[in-house]
Amino acid sequence: MSKKNVIVGQSGGPTSVINSSLYGVVTGFLGSEKIDKIYGMVNGIEGFLAGKTTVLSDLSKDELEILQTTPASYLKSCRFKLPEDLNDPVYPTLLKKFEEMNIGYFFYIGGNDSMDTVSKLSRYGEKAGTDIIFMGVPKTIDNDLIVTDHTPGYGSAAKYVATTVRECALDAGVYAAPCVTVVEIMGRHAGWLTAASVLARKFEGDAPHLIYLPETAFDMDQCLADVKKCLEKTSNVVVCISEGIADKDGKFICEYAGADGAVDSFGHKKLTGSGKYLSEVINEKLGVKVRSLEFGIIQRCGASLASATDIEEAAMAGSVAAKAALEGKTGMMVAFIREPGEEYKITYQLTDVNEVCNKEKPFPAEWITDNGTNIGEGYVKYALPLIQGASPVKLVNGLPAFLDLATTLK
Amino acid sequence: MSKKNVIVGQSGGPTSVINSSLYGVVTGFLGSEKIDKIYGMVNGIEGFLAGKTTVLSDLSKDELEILQTTPASYLKSCRFKLPEDLNDPVYPTLLKKFEEMNIGYFFYIGGNDSMDTVSKLSRYGEKAGTDIIFMGVPKTIDNDLIVTDHTPGYGSAAKYVATTVRECALDAGVYAAPCVTVVEIMGRHAGWLTAASVLARKFEGDAPHLIYLPETAFDMDQCLADVKKCLEKTSNVVVCISEGIADKDGKFICEYAGADGAVDSFGHKKLTGSGKYLSEVINEKLGVKVRSLEFGIIQRCGASLASATDIEEAAMAGSVAAKAALEGKTGMMVAFIREPGEEYKITYQLTDVNEVCNKEKPFPAEWITDNGTNIGEGYVKYALPLIQGASPVKLVNGLPAFLDLATTLK
Repeated sequence: MSKKNVIVGQSGGPTSVINSSLYGVVTGFLGSEKIDKIYGMVNGIEGFLAGKTTVLSDLSKDELEILQTTPASYLKSCRFKLPEDLNDPVYPTLLKKFEEMNIGYFFYIGGNDSMDTVSKLSRYGEKAGTDIIFMGVPKTIDNDLIVTDHTPGYGSAAKYVATTVRECALDAGVYAAPCVTVVEIMGRHAGWLTAASVLARKFEGDAPHLIYLPETAFDMDQCLADVKKCLEKTSNVVVCISEGIADKDGKFICEYAGADGAVDSFGHKKLTGSGKYLSEVINEKLGVKVRSLEFGIIQRCGASLASATDIEEAAMAGSVAAKAALEGKTGMMVAFIREPGEEYKITYQLTDVNEVCNKEKPFPAEWITDNGTNIGEGYVKYALPLIQGASPVKLVNGLPAFLDLATTLK
Repeated sequence: MSKKNVIVGQSGGPTSVINSSLYGVVTGFLGSEKIDKIYGMVNGIEGFLAGKTTVLSDLSKDELEILQTTPASYLKSCRFKLPEDLNDPVYPTLLKKFEEMNIGYFFYIGGNDSMDTVSKLSRYGEKAGTDIIFMGVPKTIDNDLIVTDHTPGYGSAAKYVATTVRECALDAGVYAAPCVTVVEIMGRHAGWLTAASVLARKFEGDAPHLIYLPETAFDMDQCLADVKKCLEKTSNVVVCISEGIADKDGKFICEYAGADGAVDSFGHKKLTGSGKYLSEVINEKLGVKVRSLEFGIIQRCGASLASATDIEEAAMAGSVAAKAALEGKTGMMVAFIREPGEEYKITYQLTDVNEVCNKEKPFPAEWITDNGTNIGEGYVKYALPLIQGASPVKLVNGLPAFLDLATTLK
């Protein structure tokens, strides 16, 4: 049997552990007799079409170790949606390129849209009768993929959110004068990441005092009443909101501020400023000092706060997918299945990528409590295991050692 | 000899290690035969005048250990300037309260304005013939106190800035399309903290590409030309600016955006939005995608990224001051003196607090290079020792264990 090459890409928004999955894929293949080279697509499918690749199997053992705790996509990323029509000429173009590079295994690490890419390629591949294996490895801080208990990247982002909300709440409370802190957390449609702010709460009445997810219709007057009520009990009120909170008609709160209605290349409405807008309203209507915080991209790349559990699971997702591919499985994504029982235990299961892509897992309604202003114990029990353990990131001269394609590209 | 009590306060903006200094003061006094109780003022002098105190000598050994790595001011804070006129009735009021509480030692942990408080109280105390000892322990992320080589709090904030700029630069560079990231870093008049962003740069041409401090007059047209030039070499340009950058006439860049000219109770001009404004201009004039990031309060309370060196030095500052007070020294502040030679070594020296307060140490002009767009090697050599070592913060259930006055107040 002649040896085949592997090609791996990363797509969509980066996370703190997407490179841990890349590490898992590479180490999962390394040493197999079926494999020759492991290529990386630079800038995903889009960069691959433009001829941008690198050779991952050339990385040293030390470099691979550093890769495991490096945030953001080492192979860069893209937001490129393959056409719905499998008769589009891009498909035979891609297949020809794969064949020219003697690719036997195509891996794509990403979220919903990336799984859509794997689905389309595997469906086209079947139609075209290729032997190439197509595999998806999940990642998204949004935690909104179905089938899997959670997604790699979520635990670290959740740990960042919980830790930083706690730190900011302590800081915001140092002055005696009443103050409201509004924290805007990533999440267009699903409130998973914003929900993690509840983990910062250490006793009844502790911050965060109000948590609003996109799953509940946001009512400005009710929110003002909620904040006012909190101010009667504490002078340091912390409000955590998802960027995508919307009113009962589905109008985003940031749209009230007159956002321009821009959309990204996937047609998602581009959001900014729900937190800033809410801060202005609270200040105007309640006459209280308001501080507005946006965690921005730091919540997904703040690798110093990555969860060790997340790093390990992300690597396992990559290596399990590699092993399965070597056994001939194709058109699959690795899903995390949580075993029943008190002790936290995950098994890794392959699931049909077509079943996963283009679907969203909403935050469970039963975990949203107190009329849409709080998160219940069910979520806390679910989320706590995901944020355990400090990142083993290595410090060099006081700063984390990260692997950068700019210096490793040969 | 009858035993005396100690009272300690914290004032001004919190830092990641101001509680390490509090730990140092408390442990420096604990066990001394001259001392009975150690009180904390809650909300500084302002809270003390309102009768708000706590008993720090009641904290357990475990609680004191946790205090050492807890960010923000455990004793809360205030922005309260004592009157210039030492004949003001607030002085005898304070003295009477001190005497009622059998205070022999008054400690204030803070920055410039807090040292002003210590200066005034010690001058009034001398005039009034009191035996009470008045001591200052420095803290400020701004690093702008004179005499001392650096201030506790600066190393941790610098480590946060360097680490996070590095993480964000990796994240910002994942897409192929040209993009400019503008990072706004704290610093009204002194660029010390913004300068720390240079530590993130790992090779020539690496981010950050442009660094603007308040010490150099900011010229918008020149900045646009600088950014344009960078975009010719890389598609991922990172620009770090101090919040207080101003033009040659001293007009803050944020004022161009029509800020309201508000001032805080110390008369400092209140700044927001230099980064946001610069982002808008770059986007408008150069037609490139721009992302605006503000580290906000997280850069001073992000204790997970505190520097172990800073934590240790902050504690030493507190305990050295306590020991000196027990020896009868008064009206002093602890300063850090860097020993000459290649190896980094600090000695702790007492300096007249009147010499320190109300003065600012600007960032050295010779460390600003490339026409005010870069920071030189001299600074890197100065700053690297200050960011060494990871915080020994203890994780409990995945999150840092912090001491919170709300749960320890008895």
